[in-house]
Amino acid sequence: MSVSAIGYGAGTADLPGQPNVLRILIGAAAQAEKGLGATEEVAVIEANLDDMNPQIYGYFLEKALASGALDVYTTPVQMKKNRPGMLLTVLCRPESVDALMKLIFAETTTFGARTYRAERRVLPREFVEVTTGFGPVRVKVSRVNGRILHVAPEYEDCKKLAAERDVPLQQVIAEALRAYAAGGKTD
Amino acid sequence: MSVSAIGYGAGTADLPGQPNVLRILIGAAAQAEKGLGATEEVAVIEANLDDMNPQIYGYFLEKALASGALDVYTTPVQMKKNRPGMLLTVLCRPESVDALMKLIFAETTTFGARTYRAERRVLPREFVEVTTGFGPVRVKVSRVNGRILHVAPEYEDCKKLAAERDVPLQQVIAEALRAYAAGGKTD
Amino acid sequence: MSVSAIGYGAGTADLPGQPNVLRILIGAAAQAEKGLGATEEVAVIEANLDDMNPQIYGYFLEKALASGALDVYTTPVQMKKNRPGMLLTVLCRPESVDALMKLIFAETTTFGARTYRAERRVLPREFVEVTTGFGPVRVKVSRVNGRILHVAPEYEDCKKLAAERDVPLQQVIAEALRAYAAGGKTD
Amino acid sequence: MSVSAIGYGAGTADLPGQPNVLRILIGAAAQAEKGLGATEEVAVIEANLDDMNPQIYGYFLEKALASGALDVYTTPVQMKKNRPGMLLTVLCRPESVDALMKLIFAETTTFGARTYRAERRVLPREFVEVTTGFGPVRVKVSRVNGRILHVAPEYEDCKKLAAERDVPLQQVIAEALRAYAAGGKTD
Amino acid sequence: MSVSAIGYGAGTADLPGQPNVLRILIGAAAQAEKGLGATEEVAVIEANLDDMNPQIYGYFLEKALASGALDVYTTPVQMKKNRPGMLLTVLCRPESVDALMKLIFAETTTFGARTYRAERRVLPREFVEVTTGFGPVRVKVSRVNGRILHVAPEYEDCKKLAAERDVPLQQVIAEALRAYAAGGKTD
Amino acid sequence: MSVSAIGYGAGTADLPGQPNVLRILIGAAAQAEKGLGATEEVAVIEANLDDMNPQIYGYFLEKALASGALDVYTTPVQMKKNRPGMLLTVLCRPESVDALMKLIFAETTTFGARTYRAERRVLPREFVEVTTGFGPVRVKVSRVNGRILHVAPEYEDCKKLAAERDVPLQQVIAEALRAYAAGGKTD
Repeated sequence: MSVSAIGYGAGTADLPGQPNVLRILIGAAAQAEKGLGATEEVAVIEANLDDMNPQIYGYFLEKALASGALDVYTTPVQMKKNRPGMLLTVLCRPESVDALMKLIFAETTTFGARTYRAERRVLPREFVEVTTGFGPVRVKVSRVNGRILHVAPEYEDCKKLAAERDVPLQQVIAEALRAYAAGGKTD
Repeated sequence: MSVSAIGYGAGTADLPGQPNVLRILIGAAAQAEKGLGATEEVAVIEANLDDMNPQIYGYFLEKALASGALDVYTTPVQMKKNRPGMLLTVLCRPESVDALMKLIFAETTTFGARTYRAERRVLPREFVEVTTGFGPVRVKVSRVNGRILHVAPEYEDCKKLAAERDVPLQQVIAEALRAYAAGGKTD
Repeated sequence: MSVSAIGYGAGTADLPGQPNVLRILIGAAAQAEKGLGATEEVAVIEANLDDMNPQIYGYFLEKALASGALDVYTTPVQMKKNRPGMLLTVLCRPESVDALMKLIFAETTTFGARTYRAERRVLPREFVEVTTGFGPVRVKVSRVNGRILHVAPEYEDCKKLAAERDVPLQQVIAEALRAYAAGGKTD
Repeated sequence: MSVSAIGYGAGTADLPGQPNVLRILIGAAAQAEKGLGATEEVAVIEANLDDMNPQIYGYFLEKALASGALDVYTTPVQMKKNRPGMLLTVLCRPESVDALMKLIFAETTTFGARTYRAERRVLPREFVEVTTGFGPVRVKVSRVNGRILHVAPEYEDCKKLAAERDVPLQQVIAEALRAYAAGGKTD
Repeated sequence: MSVSAIGYGAGTADLPGQPNVLRILIGAAAQAEKGLGATEEVAVIEANLDDMNPQIYGYFLEKALASGALDVYTTPVQMKKNRPGMLLTVLCRPESVDALMKLIFAETTTFGARTYRAERRVLPREFVEVTTGFGPVRVKVSRVNGRILHVAPEYEDCKKLAAERDVPLQQVIAEALRAYAAGGKTD
Repeated sequence: MSVSAIGYGAGTADLPGQPNVLRILIGAAAQAEKGLGATEEVAVIEANLDDMNPQIYGYFLEKALASGALDVYTTPVQMKKNRPGMLLTVLCRPESVDALMKLIFAETTTFGARTYRAERRVLPREFVEVTTGFGPVRVKVSRVNGRILHVAPEYEDCKKLAAERDVPLQQVIAEALRAYAAGGKTD
């Protein structure tokens, strides 16, 4: 495996309850310029669960994110003895594996979990605030070589405005996108 | 199941909870001849489960089939509070609804289940036995107006031969299909 | 179909943000005694979505429950043009269909939704509070003819204690079940 | 259920290979004005398949749409004997049930299928063409009481432009939305 | 990849038809004491299947477990040409890869399969037998530093008693858990 | 990872729009003879998407296959904030990772994707043409040590004949299999 440059950090900004960690995106500048993102190493942890009360998952997800997981998700799978089980997947930095394994063994019913490493490419991102008719919304933007690649209005901001103003959430998201495109950034 | 002549329930008792239509067991021969199958009424029972140990499903399935269910299956769904739940579906004849509801309330964790009626079209079927190089296999055949519609080797027969002869299951199934096509029926 | 008595209500007690509606479970007493639950009519609303930002679902779910839905869930489906879509299902009382249809049309991207009726059987339920080593927990119990059918510790109570006491959630649930079995009810 | 007016038709405009049928949306005008859509009756056909080569599904989908289906989709389910099966669902007008049942029996391996009726609410829709930097795009719009509810750029138009101009599909869709919002309609 | 200590073995005890292999859990004792489990290397084998009769899966699963697989499961996926396919995953010890690959090529329709290695953490486990009102049940327990982490009644024991005594399976499981908690171990 | 022999190539022949690349299957001949397939190294790329319009997937899949992907598929997963997301997986040769990462960043909404390597075993395959009553069909065959392992009629050929002759697709596939078994090869 040819991981030429590894960096840690890059916590996803929209995870609530997560400390706003210092982001040190090392990654080869040359690679980033090619639109391929900066490179870092991540650990993937997986456990197959076929005897757990599904109520536990929602709680586990929150605890895992608060314990340093970069992402957590479940995949429905079909297991032995005709059991509709779940594959639980946790992505984290290599140095968080022990803490998250411990959490898995404490909060879920599994007697075993597995882990392997992967190379992760992360696009550069910046946050700008735009003004919509409903209020201000932060927008996550990825810009590569001056070209805009992605524009993602922050979900929590949009949700808050939709609830406060009693307008459809999709309308708030759409207006934030238009505001960004129109150059209506406030910072 | 060798349903040679069918006729339970009315064809048009569409939405449950609606005016009680007269149930006329049609099973129109004319319809069957058009390749549309005979008509019967079935009940569909559904329950959403978000707090049950998945080990229960395999056991429930066997008990439900033994208690008169025509079919039982689970569908992975995403429920409130980020719970990966299951939709449990049981198909049965209308007169079996009470027995199966009772089973659902006894064996699963649900506090509520729902049911509605549907019209079911069933193709005529007959069983013939074919001879393969591995041994005899029953084959389920649907014939409409003299034309063969489906040919399905019995799974249990094929599985038994595959295990006994130590050959791939798909090879046994393939040979049973060829034997049928070649007219190698033993009855 | 013999729906002899229909009652409305029976809001699921653990839905946050939902008004604690008066529950009038009419249902045939005779049927309830047989362990089959009381009967009520519910509406099922379904919409297939193949062009919606998945962020909307979590928000929609909360709004739908606050607007009178009895339950809301999504099922992953495979749609035309190789689109991994979602089937959105809302269960509600018949008189809430219009309000929830309006919500679906406002908050999701669909141009069409369908609805049908089903008969719902609901087990009687009562709430008791038990004392665990971590604190008090409400337990939802279904008792039919003096026999306990289901015992379900309230998720929100258990979650709160697990977080406060920093113990695994499954341990709190297990202890609440043991406390109930041991007769350690506080009311 | 108070289905005051039932209409047939309303084929979804973006189904390729489907005849452009005359749409007669009867539906109570009053209801439509309330943003609830026009009412029509649809049939839902379902079949559980646990022994079919998955290659058949893509072909079946195209044939079903060409034979009058309003929509077709598959849901992964877990069936008896630990089989990962599929629930095949076809939505159609009541008068198309026979033709689609016949297609299901001819093209799939099932020996039985079931059908029930549902009420469908359909939003009014109109098509306008907008001009983007990449070329013209038709946009499907739903307008209720003068208020825009949904704006959906036609997938086939966007896909064609994305391929021709070698730009990301999401960029074409985003620009079509902006063009519509800016009033840049060409008709 | 920093796999500091690798062990082979640790067959999951509840796999029927599997030889009761000698378990040599090497793994760093220090790590096990921290509640992180012993470390071993496992192989993950994956194959995407889009043209296989789903009946084969149940049979394959049994054969794979009998051939040394530690676990086997299927995940519904959406593949090219609108095919609802399956991802077949087999977990095994590195020395079993060849045997299981051979089985996959013989029993399934795939022309290719892939494999990679992962580190697996396994909790220590012991079996105790408890006495319930329905009969004896073995319970799998994980104890770390004297603290009980998991308590799992053996499914086959509970299933057997539920069937013999005609009581709900969940009731047998619940009583086995209570018996263990009450110290009612028989060994 | 002990990849003893690595080869590149082996493009799956039934991917339309893909250049018919030179296949150099290196792989140990000894291993191939044992029925284990030739060995090559592949890269697996994965991205979790929780805010993307599902319409994009079908388009992405075609572009990815045209850009050198060996396979592409999506898996429904449950993500944070109760979002029904998708895991997008791309399999490719190691030298295609950069091109496909670039495509993922351009066409999807993700800000990050991960990749790891796996060893792939590929069965030898050859194409023969058989004559059916409907017309000629190419058949992909895998032969190991003179023994036929798999026989797979080409989907596109069968689909074309089914449409032209207006016969069920499964009938064309079945007849192609029988023609091969009967030795009716045309080359």
